[in-house]
Amino acid sequence: MTKPVLYFDNAASSWPKPPEVGEAMLRSIHEHAANPGRGSHRMAVQASRVIFETRKQAAKLFGIKNPNDIAFSSSTTEALNLAIKGLVKEGEHVICTGVEHNSVRRPLEFLKRTQKVQLTYLETDSSGMINIDQLKDCIRKETALVVVNHSSNLLGSILPLEDIGQLCREHGVPLLVDAAQSAGTVPIHVERFGIDLLAFPGHKGLLGPQGTGGLYIHPRIELEPYLHGGTGSQSEAIDQPTVRPDRYEAGTPNTPGLAGLNEGLKFVLKTGVENIHAKEWKQTQRIMEGLESIRGIRLLGPALGKDRTGIVSFVLAGMDASEIAFILDQHYGIAVRAGYHCTPLAHATAGTAQTGAVRTSLGYYTSDDEVDALVEAVAEIAESAIL
Amino acid sequence: MTKPVLYFDNAASSWPKPPEVGEAMLRSIHEHAANPGRGSHRMAVQASRVIFETRKQAAKLFGIKNPNDIAFSSSTTEALNLAIKGLVKEGEHVICTGVEHNSVRRPLEFLKRTQKVQLTYLETDSSGMINIDQLKDCIRKETALVVVNHSSNLLGSILPLEDIGQLCREHGVPLLVDAAQSAGTVPIHVERFGIDLLAFPGHKGLLGPQGTGGLYIHPRIELEPYLHGGTGSQSEAIDQPTVRPDRYEAGTPNTPGLAGLNEGLKFVLKTGVENIHAKEWKQTQRIMEGLESIRGIRLLGPALGKDRTGIVSFVLAGMDASEIAFILDQHYGIAVRAGYHCTPLAHATAGTAQTGAVRTSLGYYTSDDEVDALVEAVAEIAESAIL
Repeated sequence: MTKPVLYFDNAASSWPKPPEVGEAMLRSIHEHAANPGRGSHRMAVQASRVIFETRKQAAKLFGIKNPNDIAFSSSTTEALNLAIKGLVKEGEHVICTGVEHNSVRRPLEFLKRTQKVQLTYLETDSSGMINIDQLKDCIRKETALVVVNHSSNLLGSILPLEDIGQLCREHGVPLLVDAAQSAGTVPIHVERFGIDLLAFPGHKGLLGPQGTGGLYIHPRIELEPYLHGGTGSQSEAIDQPTVRPDRYEAGTPNTPGLAGLNEGLKFVLKTGVENIHAKEWKQTQRIMEGLESIRGIRLLGPALGKDRTGIVSFVLAGMDASEIAFILDQHYGIAVRAGYHCTPLAHATAGTAQTGAVRTSLGYYTSDDEVDALVEAVAEIAESAIL
Repeated sequence: MTKPVLYFDNAASSWPKPPEVGEAMLRSIHEHAANPGRGSHRMAVQASRVIFETRKQAAKLFGIKNPNDIAFSSSTTEALNLAIKGLVKEGEHVICTGVEHNSVRRPLEFLKRTQKVQLTYLETDSSGMINIDQLKDCIRKETALVVVNHSSNLLGSILPLEDIGQLCREHGVPLLVDAAQSAGTVPIHVERFGIDLLAFPGHKGLLGPQGTGGLYIHPRIELEPYLHGGTGSQSEAIDQPTVRPDRYEAGTPNTPGLAGLNEGLKFVLKTGVENIHAKEWKQTQRIMEGLESIRGIRLLGPALGKDRTGIVSFVLAGMDASEIAFILDQHYGIAVRAGYHCTPLAHATAGTAQTGAVRTSLGYYTSDDEVDALVEAVAEIAESAIL
């Protein structure tokens, strides 16, 4: 777990991982890289066991009663595509927020183009927050789905899922939550929050490897399977089996990846999501306090003191975001991300659609020293820009 | 690379892997688990580099001119879904063979149900071979696609791709090849064979980890993207970018998995597909010779002396396939697979739709001693069944 760079790109993928993650992947490759569920021999059984354990951990973390209501996927994007394309039918209406990631916006715009699906983008304020009354006003008879980004990947804002869930339940509209930036770092309880569909990545806050993710599907919701193929069950049937999770998991699963995710989940459960959130929030405040004192800097997202995930984005007057990121990388060994972060919507919201922004995003392993080094580097860059 | 079991389930997933595979995955997790293509910092660049190297190796192996015509996927199943659903339009006609895996059959049957797509299952003989003249007769004006299983996952038969490709080219019909059982173990050259779409797994003959695979898409073929989401490129566009491979690879890629696959591909290229095929073929003949001498055994697929991949399936008169597999696992520590292998079509072809079969499948690492132990164990089981 050497840290050759100061890594502030955890919103793209968390790093480093707990050492157990890589070890479990290696063990999986060496000891049970067989195909789970397709054979009854002991290696296949071992693989099935690891995957079921991972499913149980994820269920525990999100307050899901039946682990089999989770379908693993190769990414949040895949989970969101399954949820959106599997649920919404021709001509129906969908509401999403004005800060959605392209992984929500593009599937929805695809359905708009090809299936005459009607879209409402719910306005947010410049910090990324929605107004519940406005959401209520958007709901129509033909509204088939509400999709919300739990935490904007640009702004770090956190939406009030409990209120949104209650509203959706009152109107009988399914709620899909994109938890790309919150799974493992902000408490989520699908039952309590009234979430019908929860898409989550394995490789961000859950500290597992890339290539993993999942979708929780409430037992009363039936989706059209996204992938059609072999499942090892009901082989003779022409359609996907009805049993979960097989129905939504065609093809050979990513056993080593899920073995790694299992360890990431264990680490998160052991540490406690509340503790992770508290630690990360404190660090964001430290970054914000530091950056705010630099002339020409404008911070995006919720104000100092308000709740947010571990993301602090900013623009510096008169200087290109990607230039700042380049200097941070080349001169200071600090990894951040500049540009549009696959979310032109959130950039429009924040007033940075023309300029882009620099996004810093921290993780559980980020230290105070690293935060201070980041702030100092940005201060130096800002100063040289003025000179 | 301990081998606690005698592993004859390589058709499900190859095992063991070259040691470099796991090492590269671990290195990826430790050193460049960032999100390639989304940031310009050095860890993201390293991740992009590993993935591009993997793409180049795969291109080299399959005779593909431009590595960017390969879209990586999480499985062959996903690659086949992208190819089939992305190409075939309402009411069009598709030809496939009578030995397809459910990963081809189920997407096609889905299109038949929902898009009025017409299907022709081309008959094969009991060993899994097709007749080229019959294929020619099946081609109609509205035929949009021919799909063939290069090597049946039950029978081990190898279809004459060059002849099929030539016929398809003459008729201007795109050819999709399911190389689940042949990629890395049977020579494939997309240009020479006239293949327009090639779906391949990373975790079988290419000796990489589960959770990887890919689809080659001929430059003149445009598919409707299967996943819609972020790509890190053209973020502001409502649709997927047009540039390859981004167009077909939305979401965070499986960098550790692809780093592992890179090593698997290097091993295959270094060893030579012809050499791998020759070694595996010799072993299948050793198994077949051994099993043929056992009373009550019927071997499936091509006859002794004929070309085949490393799969030898059999039925034993009066004994249930899964019982044999169970005894092999429990008493002998031998891993095989019994049942229907996600291919009820091939079982119907082989006359084993009622009984299922025992499938043994070997890999590059299988030794003569292991083959002999397998044959001896089956002989003992057969003997005890008669007693």
